Amino acid sequence: MIGLDWGTSALRAYRIDRDGGIRERRRADLGILHIVGGAFEDALEDTVGDWLAEDPDVPVLAAGMITSRQGWVETPYLSCPADIDALAAALVPGRLRSGRTILFVGGLSTRGADGVPDVMRGEETQIAGALAGGDAPRLLLLPGTHAKWVRCEGETVTAFTTMMTGELYGLLRRYGILGRLMEGEAEDAAAFARGVRYGAGDDPAAGGLLHRLFSARSLGLFGEIPPRGLASYLSGLLIGSELREGALVHGAGEPVGLVGEAALVARYRTALDLLGRSCRVLPSDLAARGLFALARRAGLLARG
Amino acid sequence: MIGLDWGTSALRAYRIDRDGGIRERRRADLGILHIVGGAFEDALEDTVGDWLAEDPDVPVLAAGMITSRQGWVETPYLSCPADIDALAAALVPGRLRSGRTILFVGGLSTRGADGVPDVMRGEETQIAGALAGGDAPRLLLLPGTHAKWVRCEGETVTAFTTMMTGELYGLLRRYGILGRLMEGEAEDAAAFARGVRYGAGDDPAAGGLLHRLFSARSLGLFGEIPPRGLASYLSGLLIGSELREGALVHGAGEPVGLVGEAALVARYRTALDLLGRSCRVLPSDLAARGLFALARRAGLLARG
Repeated sequence: MIGLDWGTSALRAYRIDRDGGIRERRRADLGILHIVGGAFEDALEDTVGDWLAEDPDVPVLAAGMITSRQGWVETPYLSCPADIDALAAALVPGRLRSGRTILFVGGLSTRGADGVPDVMRGEETQIAGALAGGDAPRLLLLPGTHAKWVRCEGETVTAFTTMMTGELYGLLRRYGILGRLMEGEAEDAAAFARGVRYGAGDDPAAGGLLHRLFSARSLGLFGEIPPRGLASYLSGLLIGSELREGALVHGAGEPVGLVGEAALVARYRTALDLLGRSCRVLPSDLAARGLFALARRAGLLARG
Repeated sequence: MIGLDWGTSALRAYRIDRDGGIRERRRADLGILHIVGGAFEDALEDTVGDWLAEDPDVPVLAAGMITSRQGWVETPYLSCPADIDALAAALVPGRLRSGRTILFVGGLSTRGADGVPDVMRGEETQIAGALAGGDAPRLLLLPGTHAKWVRCEGETVTAFTTMMTGELYGLLRRYGILGRLMEGEAEDAAAFARGVRYGAGDDPAAGGLLHRLFSARSLGLFGEIPPRGLASYLSGLLIGSELREGALVHGAGEPVGLVGEAALVARYRTALDLLGRSCRVLPSDLAARGLFALARRAGLLARG
């Protein structure tokens, strides 16, 4: 089969064996933000036209922001609880110019205890890849622009919580007044650790995030953190805050399964270690595994 | 005297009588961000050169970001507790090309219970104006890019807490992924109120700010808040969150004195009303009053 993990900034393509092994992978800077005038099929042809031609009969599945309102085909959100079979049953077909079918994965939605909706699109496929393995922790954490904390039972996603950690870091670093004091993106481990501890601290009299963020400025002004450490401090502060918030919503006792890009997962792992919370880093390529699991559950793959 | 409230984006100038009355006021888009190559004195001449010529002997005082590292003269921070007399004693003199003296007001610093420093620059002068009146509430709230919650006793500032509310709103509205869903800056009172209530809610299981911010996206995606209401919702959410954080640090029982620009103060007043917390809007022109109080306490003004 051909699996597409098609996000905002990149298109990642996988050519997958009948037994789920990844035969070949490609990456193109053809995320939906880079595609003008809806030319999604042209981008697909440019990236894996040869695969499509060589394997004219294998299923093609796509997940990620490609299924959002700004994408190729908008798929509905499935409400949680939802399991892998429900995701497989909800695949939305589209048609290529050749007449061939391409199947799009739906996103997931949930509502918090407060009734406010939450959504994901793309992460559900990575989660399906993790859960299909059978031994994933029951609490998964997918860091990113909009980090997801995901509560699972068996093969079912029961609830999840989005955290805007990555987006806030990017905005503050790039456009914020804080950013003007910062130099480089240098990895300053001590500054990162100080940020994690301060962000994760649970003394309410120390203020919440709106206040704590300002420490990245005041500690810089007072020379207590060098300019080259401030970006690391801010990253630690935001990740520490996320871990504190996540513990309030999802509990602090159980191990966390980390899913995502290696450098970011390493940061979260460091932060969790600092706070004495156990975690397990799940395999990479979970998107490919998830696409394979969904194709199989949808009955698209003859058993090998 | 001539008083200058010289901030990041604007220079506000006041010509003040011996009894503290404002005879004339001017505003120029000559904040420190707009001044190239350190040409502060030229900007001053352009704005109030005629006042300087007509009143060659009266004191000239300046407060605001003009005294920061990026400004004209960097003044040190006074540590809290600090009163009006201490601020007056710490005025830093500079010299104009004419030989005339200009006096710069120092900022204030404090440390939270957690030992982390906090700073203000410019607000101390507005606060001096409020405290010199003699009947200000003991808890002042100055909304803005970096909002200040200020604890006072008599004429002394004992402690304060900065909140990054305004900066986060600007970043999310202007550069954020949330902003793409938003239309206009329309004042949608219902959406604002919904945001205030959600931001101020104190159920930890509902998540903290990193999670709650995402509701501005998910409620938009679900059509529960119209695109023209999302900016108001986000503003309410951030202000409600600030009021919740502020209550944890400074208590929720006493009335809040609101100081600042009318439109922003009105938003905070609405939010405080919604949450059943009493407040009092302090007079405008507190910067001018503060500059006058500091000049008088410094012995620069002959009593009328």
